[in-house]
Amino acid sequence: MCQLLGMNCNTPTDVTFSFAGFAQRGGRTDHHADGWGIAFFEDRGLRHFVDHQPACESPVAELIRRYPIKSQHVISHIRKATQGQVNLQNCHPFVRELWGRYWVFAHNGDLKDFRPRLHGNFHPVGDTDSEHAFCWIMQELAKSHAGVPSIEELTLTLRELAPQIARHGTFNFMLSNGQALWAHASTHLCYIERKHPFNQAHLADEDMSIDFARHTTPTDRVAVVVTTPLTTNETWTPFASGELKVFVDGCALSR
Amino acid sequence: MCQLLGMNCNTPTDVTFSFAGFAQRGGRTDHHADGWGIAFFEDRGLRHFVDHQPACESPVAELIRRYPIKSQHVISHIRKATQGQVNLQNCHPFVRELWGRYWVFAHNGDLKDFRPRLHGNFHPVGDTDSEHAFCWIMQELAKSHAGVPSIEELTLTLRELAPQIARHGTFNFMLSNGQALWAHASTHLCYIERKHPFNQAHLADEDMSIDFARHTTPTDRVAVVVTTPLTTNETWTPFASGELKVFVDGCALSR
Repeated sequence: MCQLLGMNCNTPTDVTFSFAGFAQRGGRTDHHADGWGIAFFEDRGLRHFVDHQPACESPVAELIRRYPIKSQHVISHIRKATQGQVNLQNCHPFVRELWGRYWVFAHNGDLKDFRPRLHGNFHPVGDTDSEHAFCWIMQELAKSHAGVPSIEELTLTLRELAPQIARHGTFNFMLSNGQALWAHASTHLCYIERKHPFNQAHLADEDMSIDFARHTTPTDRVAVVVTTPLTTNETWTPFASGELKVFVDGCALSR
Repeated sequence: MCQLLGMNCNTPTDVTFSFAGFAQRGGRTDHHADGWGIAFFEDRGLRHFVDHQPACESPVAELIRRYPIKSQHVISHIRKATQGQVNLQNCHPFVRELWGRYWVFAHNGDLKDFRPRLHGNFHPVGDTDSEHAFCWIMQELAKSHAGVPSIEELTLTLRELAPQIARHGTFNFMLSNGQALWAHASTHLCYIERKHPFNQAHLADEDMSIDFARHTTPTDRVAVVVTTPLTTNETWTPFASGELKVFVDGCALSR
């Protein structure tokens, strides 16, 4: 099993604090040492970093911890291989282009016997169940819509697609196209919405605290979604099993 | 106009020496300061770095200079914007997936009035002539072949496609799918094939030398393709105008 981290904000925000704790799970405080990756949207553009070294040792992860890349939509993943070899093409998140937008996907879980025939324009480069599921989702999105759908329309489509995959195993995933962050839980996912008045937070995986009040303005809103809580002194809301949530401008939409 | 750098090798090789000189052209020894990017194949996987900061100042470029990522196929680009804004989605190289392989493309030049309708599955995310040309090439490749073609077949198809674009302006480009490096020149492109016995080389853009004999084995072969020569004491072979060359295992194929 792997771990997922997502961030969605109403203003470009750096993820260095959350990533510092999260990256420790890539081989140090937890055993997810089979590679990692992170993708940051900047407007429609994308920075995408993957590495098959453990996140806690990777020079690329060290860059991310130190270089505050600001983004409104971030998806990160650390891998514990269940299907597929440990190599670069099997590192999440995966990226495809559709309708002139990049789409980023990461998955935590294990899908048994989910290898539908891919008759569309998206094919896996690696050999994971996760990338196969992503390509199937992209194929079905392309069939369901003629162009980039509204956030609400896309949410409805994903609510139809996710259960069809989830019945094959554990399907916690995150998806973003630079407009919103969609997150679906089969088992473990939780989230927090940070807003004014901002407080101090203390990492669970490293002895590090931050006073968000010193780094934010009163209008900032930041939602963080993660496999298990990143901080010890905040209240994280767990997803229900089978729940799909969409985050826009740092808030979970009510439906 | 921009600058291009490509490397093709028979064994995974790091590009740090060439990139050290090349990155200086991104704002220091030359005026290509509107972003940069680099992509490294590792087997079928890809590391892709883009940054809209000048290459000579970018923290990500600093990582590439110091972290010896070994690859058999590398494409890098530093940008002097002619069409399209300075932002992340307009930074080369561009990446798409087709037939379960990543395809990487970078372009130097200026295409006037080349905006064919894209009726296939590839659409630009940014607004450059370059990404539009890449999407058109991918669309035409998808129409011309049923799956990943042989290197020879793909070379024939590119020999048909490249002149159709080149008549609209300057079209120096590099393309790789992790099997070979294709390079096409309208104006400026040159290459070198390094092999045993290896010699010392001195960078043109920085006071730096390397003795390749100390970092290689006798069977290593490395081809480097670049807009203008990177070193002062080696003989670089210029491309003819309209020439498309394909590099495999560090050698230029004879046709």
